[in-house]
Amino acid sequence: MQHLIFTNDVTATIDRLIHNGNPNLTMWIADANTARFVPDGARLITIPDGDCNKSLETVTHVWDEMERMGATRRSLAINLGGGMVTDLGGFAAATYKRGLRFINVPTTLLGAVDAAVGGKTGFNYNGLKNEIGTFAPASEVIISTRYFDTLPIEEMKSGYAEVIKHAMLSDREELQRLLDHDFSAPISHDDLLERLRRSVKVKVDIVDRDPNELGERKALNLGHTIGHAFEALAMQQDKPIAHGYAVAWGLVAESILSHLHLRFPSEDVHLLGNFVRDNYRGFPFTCDDYDDLLALMRHDKKSRDGEITCTLLATIGDYRIDQTVTPDDVTAALDILRDHLGL
Amino acid sequence: MQHLIFTNDVTATIDRLIHNGNPNLTMWIADANTARFVPDGARLITIPDGDCNKSLETVTHVWDEMERMGATRRSLAINLGGGMVTDLGGFAAATYKRGLRFINVPTTLLGAVDAAVGGKTGFNYNGLKNEIGTFAPASEVIISTRYFDTLPIEEMKSGYAEVIKHAMLSDREELQRLLDHDFSAPISHDDLLERLRRSVKVKVDIVDRDPNELGERKALNLGHTIGHAFEALAMQQDKPIAHGYAVAWGLVAESILSHLHLRFPSEDVHLLGNFVRDNYRGFPFTCDDYDDLLALMRHDKKSRDGEITCTLLATIGDYRIDQTVTPDDVTAALDILRDHLGL
Repeated sequence: MQHLIFTNDVTATIDRLIHNGNPNLTMWIADANTARFVPDGARLITIPDGDCNKSLETVTHVWDEMERMGATRRSLAINLGGGMVTDLGGFAAATYKRGLRFINVPTTLLGAVDAAVGGKTGFNYNGLKNEIGTFAPASEVIISTRYFDTLPIEEMKSGYAEVIKHAMLSDREELQRLLDHDFSAPISHDDLLERLRRSVKVKVDIVDRDPNELGERKALNLGHTIGHAFEALAMQQDKPIAHGYAVAWGLVAESILSHLHLRFPSEDVHLLGNFVRDNYRGFPFTCDDYDDLLALMRHDKKSRDGEITCTLLATIGDYRIDQTVTPDDVTAALDILRDHLGL
Repeated sequence: MQHLIFTNDVTATIDRLIHNGNPNLTMWIADANTARFVPDGARLITIPDGDCNKSLETVTHVWDEMERMGATRRSLAINLGGGMVTDLGGFAAATYKRGLRFINVPTTLLGAVDAAVGGKTGFNYNGLKNEIGTFAPASEVIISTRYFDTLPIEEMKSGYAEVIKHAMLSDREELQRLLDHDFSAPISHDDLLERLRRSVKVKVDIVDRDPNELGERKALNLGHTIGHAFEALAMQQDKPIAHGYAVAWGLVAESILSHLHLRFPSEDVHLLGNFVRDNYRGFPFTCDDYDDLLALMRHDKKSRDGEITCTLLATIGDYRIDQTVTPDDVTAALDILRDHLGL
């Protein structure tokens, strides 16, 4: 189990962790955007940013740098960045000499509520996302809002979609509070950190019960079977969208499927749908795209034997994994989604 | 924990495991020497044999082949071969889509008592042995003597050194029985399998208590701090020796150190030393090689801060990990070893 630390005093926290762990060497792994947050004089491994660099080539660069610095099993790596840095840096650290200790310090909201927590590491391979990886938890994850001030609003919204997902899996009142949020209104660091604490707890509780995703952890895929298809289609059509935007749409589409399959309340579909319509401008897909979307869902890493499987909800907090849905169901849900979003 | 199956009916056992696990695809990973043992018509990934091919390039070949065959998380890999195949195949399987189930079927005595059991996977990188890897146990290890008939005697002796090591860590009577062995006398498959069962149990009991080698598992490095130095020196001098031969010499040298440090009984040093002298012809190193050997020991993956650390014995079965020894101690032990072996 990984140790989560919610704090806005990151520097002192890291100093304490280094002091307690007594590594013979501390290395920071950061990308072009986050290297400026690394303390002066620290040993730094810089990797190129962007999902296209989440590659084996970048992994070998990190291994080579670790070796050049003389890292041993008693050394420490600190991954400072978004999901790309924590995923790839975590993989490099988890496999170098069969694993050295690493700390994740996510710098984006999406990273804080998703990638940095839960022990998934990996990189893209042969054009497939996170195709190679391991389950290897960071020894500590330091969750802070101090890096968020300079994030674009789209980046914040992208992470917020995962926060909404966690509330859908656990707590109707929390969901209601989240959907009352106004992105143009200021929110204090402390309030946001408190919201993060509740959100991350949902993920951690599920992961602790099923770290290797053999069953219950699939609950965290809510919104992602259809969301990933949106994300991949947008990429294919050369108009990429942020992960969380695709997930937001996926959450609405899969809540519609939940209504069709498990009588998930239609008022909750509407509540969610309105928030997503008002805050997440997606890309205008049409019924001509349905066949491509269905094909992408069938090829999802989570699908089996060409069937489309989702996590669905009976009510907020009552999730059901491994639900098989038919192409006709999905088509109906996509129709309703487009209608709802006014596409 | 991994499931160990001792049997000489490998085919039926694998059929049963495949049937019970119900994978959507079964792939065999074997090298040029062991591919002939793979059933006709099975999906086979062949990798080049030899330690020099235990490389990232070979790992990517396995990943690519898995992808070409359409492997998913519900697929099964069977690693059939010596330590190189189970280490590298295990790494590829443990990281493909963050891990699919794999079974190890060691075909050498050394593999059966060492590499295939205990969850270490990996490959060589930048000239360093097993530099990149993970701790990922095979779901099952099938231990059989049926592949040993065609092994050269040197290969059998190499594995036997690890069998001796396990007895030194656990049981004086078993050690005595092992040292009474005559390699020129026939031994039945059933007797050998029974001996393997006792030997592997020693390793498994230790690994279960410390799978990630944070402490007690270092006991299994008995003989290896000095043994690895012999192995590396022989390689540097272009007269490579089998791993187990280097370990056999390392066991004698470290039992001498154990006598010097912990009063390990000298009669046990002699008992072991005589067997090794009679059965393991090493390479004739001289006192001119001591500096190189000491440098290699200081750079061992297990050493820290340039000190030489070993696992030593107070008596047979009473091991002490993390024992620091001085260069003078090692020099004295090497002198006594050379004297004992008549070098």
